[in-house]
Amino acid sequence: MILKNDRFLRALKRQPVDYTPIWLMRQAGRYLPEYRATRAKAGNFMNLCQNPELACEVTLQPLERFDLDAAILFSDILTVPDAMGLGLYFSEGEGPLFKQPIKNIQDIQKLVIPDPEGELKYVMDAVRLIRRELNGRVPLIGFSGSPWTLATYMVEGGSTKTFSKIKALIYNEPAAAHQLLDILAKSVSAYLNAQISAGAQAVMIFDTWGGVLTKKDYLDFSLSYMQQIVDTLPKNDVPVILFTKGGGSWLEEMSLSGCSALGLDWQTGLGDARKRVGNQVALQGNLDPSMLYANPDKIRLEVADLLRDFGHGNGHIFNLGHGIHPEINPDHVKALVDAVHELSRPYHANA
Amino acid sequence: MILKNDRFLRALKRQPVDYTPIWLMRQAGRYLPEYRATRAKAGNFMNLCQNPELACEVTLQPLERFDLDAAILFSDILTVPDAMGLGLYFSEGEGPLFKQPIKNIQDIQKLVIPDPEGELKYVMDAVRLIRRELNGRVPLIGFSGSPWTLATYMVEGGSTKTFSKIKALIYNEPAAAHQLLDILAKSVSAYLNAQISAGAQAVMIFDTWGGVLTKKDYLDFSLSYMQQIVDTLPKNDVPVILFTKGGGSWLEEMSLSGCSALGLDWQTGLGDARKRVGNQVALQGNLDPSMLYANPDKIRLEVADLLRDFGHGNGHIFNLGHGIHPEINPDHVKALVDAVHELSRPYHANA
Repeated sequence: MILKNDRFLRALKRQPVDYTPIWLMRQAGRYLPEYRATRAKAGNFMNLCQNPELACEVTLQPLERFDLDAAILFSDILTVPDAMGLGLYFSEGEGPLFKQPIKNIQDIQKLVIPDPEGELKYVMDAVRLIRRELNGRVPLIGFSGSPWTLATYMVEGGSTKTFSKIKALIYNEPAAAHQLLDILAKSVSAYLNAQISAGAQAVMIFDTWGGVLTKKDYLDFSLSYMQQIVDTLPKNDVPVILFTKGGGSWLEEMSLSGCSALGLDWQTGLGDARKRVGNQVALQGNLDPSMLYANPDKIRLEVADLLRDFGHGNGHIFNLGHGIHPEINPDHVKALVDAVHELSRPYHANA
Repeated sequence: MILKNDRFLRALKRQPVDYTPIWLMRQAGRYLPEYRATRAKAGNFMNLCQNPELACEVTLQPLERFDLDAAILFSDILTVPDAMGLGLYFSEGEGPLFKQPIKNIQDIQKLVIPDPEGELKYVMDAVRLIRRELNGRVPLIGFSGSPWTLATYMVEGGSTKTFSKIKALIYNEPAAAHQLLDILAKSVSAYLNAQISAGAQAVMIFDTWGGVLTKKDYLDFSLSYMQQIVDTLPKNDVPVILFTKGGGSWLEEMSLSGCSALGLDWQTGLGDARKRVGNQVALQGNLDPSMLYANPDKIRLEVADLLRDFGHGNGHIFNLGHGIHPEINPDHVKALVDAVHELSRPYHANA
C-alpha cells in the first residue's frame, strides 16, 4: 500500500519535505468530545484499550478534524506490566494503579516475558486494524513505556511524587533492580518488534520518569535499557523515537543510542538541542502544551518562534513537549496544525 | 555577637573553609518526631508558622540532632500572598490552598504591598527570636517564594499539574501578569529586606515553579523579577541564594543576577554546573533527596561522589536537590551530615 503522506517518516530520516510534519502526543484524547463519547461507550479506559475496534475508532478521530501527519496507536504505556499479571486499573483522579505491585525480589523472579500475540494480542489486533483503516493516509506510530518508567509504576504500585520505593530498590538492591529492568527491556523489545510486524511504521519509547534520576543513574537504570531495546529493532526501516521527559541535559548520550529522533520537552530549546546533537538524530517537539490555552493569534506567533529556532534544514517533526491537556479547545489545535504547515514552508523552500 | 560557625557564610562568599558546610532544605520538618509533636501542639501548619515561639522551637530542633552549619527560618513560601489577603490554608494531602485566589485583573489591581512589620510581623518576630536563641551557633537563613512561584499559587488557587490558569494569564494577558509579578517583586523585596533587618544572615529565593516555563518565558516572567529583588538587597553583606527547581538549563543567566549562590536540583551535575558558572557564584546542592532512602554505606559513597564531582576549591555548600521527604529515617540524615564533614576535609586541605 502506498503511503499518501510520508512527511513524518521523511523528517525522521532527516530527508527533505515540503513542510514540517506535525502530530501531537495524546492527540486521541479527552479534549475531543467524540473521544469522550467512545470512552463512555467502552465503560472504562482499559476496555477502550483492549477493544481493537474502539481503539481504532479513537486513533482515527483526530485525523478527521485536523491535518495531522501521523497517527499513533491508542493504548497505554503500561500494557506490558499488565500482561505480566500486575493487574492495571485506573481510578478517577489517581491515574494508573496496579493490583499486584512488585513488593520484593521474589516478585521480580516470577516475572515472565509476555507473548505479544498472546496476552497482548489485543494491541497487535488494534495495530493491524488501524493500518487497514488508515489505508495509507498517514503512517502509524507504535509505542511503549521505557523499562525504567514501567519499573517505577510496578514498584510504586501507581503514581508517586517521591519515587521512594523504586529509588530505595535501585540504591539498596541494585542487582534486583537490574534484573527487573532487564526482563522489562526484553519484554518491551518483543512488544515493539511485534507492533512493527503488525504494521507500526515508526515506534516511540516514552521514558516519562527518566528525568527524576541523576545523570549517572539515568545512564545506568534508564538509557542503557532503552539502548538494549533499540539494538533489537529494525531501525533502518522503522524509525525509533526516544523521549525522556526532563531529559534535556542528556541529549548527547541519548542521540548516540542508535535511535532516529529525540522527543524534546518544552524546557529544552529546539535550536540549542539541534546544535548539541548535530546531524545525529531528528528532533521532535516541543511546544509547551499549555500554549494551547492561548488564543490562536498567540499560538501562531509561538509556532513562528519555534520554527525559527529550529531554522532551515531537515529533521524536525513538530509536536508538543508533553501530552495535550484534557481541557484544550479543539479549535486551538486546528490553529496550531494549520500554522505549522503554513509557516514552515519557507524553511523547506528548496525541498 | 560572634558567629561560632561561619563556614556556611564563608562558602557562600567562595572563601576557604576547613570542611564543606551542609544544611538541608526542610531540615525542620515532618521526618523528625519532635517536629510532629510541636506541630500537633500547634493544631495546624499555619498556627505553627504564625507562632514565633513554636516556629523558633522547630527551627532549632534539627540542630540538636545533627551538626548542621546553618539554620533556616521555619515558615512557608506563601506568607506574602496570605498577608495580601488571599487566605492561605492547608488541606491534608492537597497542599496549600487560597480562599480568595486571583480571578481577574481587578483582583490584581486591588493588591497592596504587605507591611513586613504589620501583617507579617509574626515572621520578623520569629527571625528575632531565633537569632537570639541561636546565640551565634550557626547563621540564620531567611527566605521567600519567588514572584513567579507566588503568582502561580495565587492564580491557580493551589497546587496544579497543568498550570492552566497562570499560563493562560501570561499568554493571553501578559500586561496583567507583569502587573501581578511587579507588585509581588516589590512585596518580596520589602519582606526579605525586613528579614535581614530582623537578623537573617543570608536569604534564599525559592522558585519552585520556574522550571515549568520555556527559557524565554522563564527569563521574562521569573528571572527578571528575581533580578529586581536581588537589586534591592544588601548582597555584599548578606548573601543571596537563587534556586529554580528544574532550572538546570539556565544557570548561566541566573549566575549573572548578582546573587551569591545558586541552588541546584539533583538532575544538574555539580561539576558541569561549576564549569558553566565559573567563579561567578557559589553552588548549593545537590544530593537526590531520595538517596536518603538508601542505607548509610550507600549514602557515604554518594557523598564521596558528589564531593569529587565538585572537586577542590571554594564555594560549595552541601544540600539536597529539593526538600527532605517526610518518611526519611533521621539516622540516615546523621550519616549524611557526618559523611559530608568528614569526607570533604581533603578537598579543603590548604584552607
